[in-house]
Amino acid sequence: MDTIERTIERIEPLDEEAMKKAKNRQDNLTKPIGSLGLLEDLSVKLAGITRNPMPRINSKAIITMAGDHGIVESGIGIYPQDVTAQMVYNFLSGGAAINVFARHVGAKVIVVDMGVKSDIRPAPESHQDFIVKKIGYGTKNMEKEPAMTRKQAIRSIKAGIEIFEEIYKRGCDVVGTGDMGIGNTSPSTAITAVFTGLPVSKVCGRGTGIDDEKLKRKIEAIENAIELHKPDPADPIDVLSKVGGFEIGGICGVVLSACANHVPVVVDGFISGVGALIASKLHPEVKNYLIIAHKSAEPGHSAVLNELGLSPLLNFNMRLGEGTGAALGISIVEASAKILTEMKTFEEAGVSKAKGE
Amino acid sequence: MDTIERTIERIEPLDEEAMKKAKNRQDNLTKPIGSLGLLEDLSVKLAGITRNPMPRINSKAIITMAGDHGIVESGIGIYPQDVTAQMVYNFLSGGAAINVFARHVGAKVIVVDMGVKSDIRPAPESHQDFIVKKIGYGTKNMEKEPAMTRKQAIRSIKAGIEIFEEIYKRGCDVVGTGDMGIGNTSPSTAITAVFTGLPVSKVCGRGTGIDDEKLKRKIEAIENAIELHKPDPADPIDVLSKVGGFEIGGICGVVLSACANHVPVVVDGFISGVGALIASKLHPEVKNYLIIAHKSAEPGHSAVLNELGLSPLLNFNMRLGEGTGAALGISIVEASAKILTEMKTFEEAGVSKAKGE
Repeated sequence: MDTIERTIERIEPLDEEAMKKAKNRQDNLTKPIGSLGLLEDLSVKLAGITRNPMPRINSKAIITMAGDHGIVESGIGIYPQDVTAQMVYNFLSGGAAINVFARHVGAKVIVVDMGVKSDIRPAPESHQDFIVKKIGYGTKNMEKEPAMTRKQAIRSIKAGIEIFEEIYKRGCDVVGTGDMGIGNTSPSTAITAVFTGLPVSKVCGRGTGIDDEKLKRKIEAIENAIELHKPDPADPIDVLSKVGGFEIGGICGVVLSACANHVPVVVDGFISGVGALIASKLHPEVKNYLIIAHKSAEPGHSAVLNELGLSPLLNFNMRLGEGTGAALGISIVEASAKILTEMKTFEEAGVSKAKGE
Repeated sequence: MDTIERTIERIEPLDEEAMKKAKNRQDNLTKPIGSLGLLEDLSVKLAGITRNPMPRINSKAIITMAGDHGIVESGIGIYPQDVTAQMVYNFLSGGAAINVFARHVGAKVIVVDMGVKSDIRPAPESHQDFIVKKIGYGTKNMEKEPAMTRKQAIRSIKAGIEIFEEIYKRGCDVVGTGDMGIGNTSPSTAITAVFTGLPVSKVCGRGTGIDDEKLKRKIEAIENAIELHKPDPADPIDVLSKVGGFEIGGICGVVLSACANHVPVVVDGFISGVGALIASKLHPEVKNYLIIAHKSAEPGHSAVLNELGLSPLLNFNMRLGEGTGAALGISIVEASAKILTEMKTFEEAGVSKAKGE
């Protein structure tokens, strides 16, 4: 756990001084005080995270982590498991939703194989960043045995940390998280139920769009897994190992490393939210570094956001994952930073202030 | 009224065939059906508006219309009236929020003097588009006399039409509306009250941030204006002339012309919403061409959206105007078009579909 502990130790509270300076600047920009609402608050938060009253966002990265899930054997979904690998190839050739959104907002996509069931062989012409950190060829079926060993859980978090440290070295001002893994709403639902104490039936959704019968099976399988392994909510690594996923551990690691490096984390939907939730259970300051991109259509996501005490930027009824919501969120975050740094103050623009100000 | 009538006559229902084709393509893109939620619906709407199942958004324009308001004399605000002109200069020098947001989303800002109280003399080095269509040097104080003559109301709408026709000729795939005018939440509130039948006190807000005493005065002044002129909600031009504003008429004209040319209109906040509402009262199909960028913090905006029967994309508690919300909305609209046109289908990407599809 050395890497994980060292990373956690570096996570600091937000920089109050930078936030005060940013707030003061916001209040002198050529607009009525508070009239850009949430974007003003967001820019102040950015100042606190980056420890810079004039935060600049130049390099934007989205890390899309892929993994397979043994629980698929239990008949909880409608897509064949091969789709995880097929979608990774789709990411690498630039044809998936995350590629479109990332290009739109000017972010780089880094695709990571955290534990896809087959080996991914990128086409020689692929220009997409691709990293292999395979912790295993898919998790075990948690309905019957722990999804992974404790060692694997630790390795998955470490892998996430290593990946972000590398990206950070090359320059990264904001990072978005993303996931791909057929079946991964099941471990995410299990983790949500364990940390929130809510019944599985309350936090379980239809994932890619399953019918009532499959939903019943999914709830039952998740309940069986929790009943069988009794994950300990006071031990986040225990939860991740017993009912988690390799990409979820990877996302947790990315979040921890970003926090340690004072980089804002734009969290995608349900699966990313669960990865961030585990990170927040490892260090309470993590929450302050998170920007929730959107509210997923998956019911479990609301429970995750409640547990984190955070509100989403967007509410578009999306449920795709991949980092698609994070990409849109990154654009909003960037807009908020630009308002703070590029707008003129009343004095600079020669505009009169309100009476009494 | 010739120009206005001719424009209205060109407004058609959305193209059902293009929408069907777009929906069909959405359902074959490499994602679970419906998993991009609102963005999928938006892309289908775009297809219907543009009559193109593969809508492309290249040229983006935001038209920010400025005007002054006689009601300011009645002591309803906290900013000096000169701020309207000062902010126009700020727009022209690129230092205002709308400039920052427009640069962020790659849109052009066209600033229009629809009726600022003083003459605007752009600095020779200004590269911003600036159009003068001055209908008057500010409206009259509607608490005492009609804000403008019927002729002026018609001229303001015509000016908006002429401006957009010109922009459209040079190429425009999406247009955002925006406003600047110290005091302009007062006419907007009056128009909202007249069209919805709601009491002024229910739809009147604090604008740039007035205190309780000013709010009382504002409500009273608006009530007095409505009582005195009795604007006829069945005659939108009557409403605009008696309790409106030059920039509001201009926005109405832009909306009408965009609809006639099959260009999607991204409507900013309260003032723009009121301009669009007047347009929708002139032709019922207008509503289908509108995309509501965000829900303003001004209470009257909810009433306007209710009357239009439309929901906002964003809910950021913003209340600045200028087209700032529209700029952010344009980026979302563009993302939705790119999803439809740039993502690969299951077949193209070699990805398996869900069982049973």
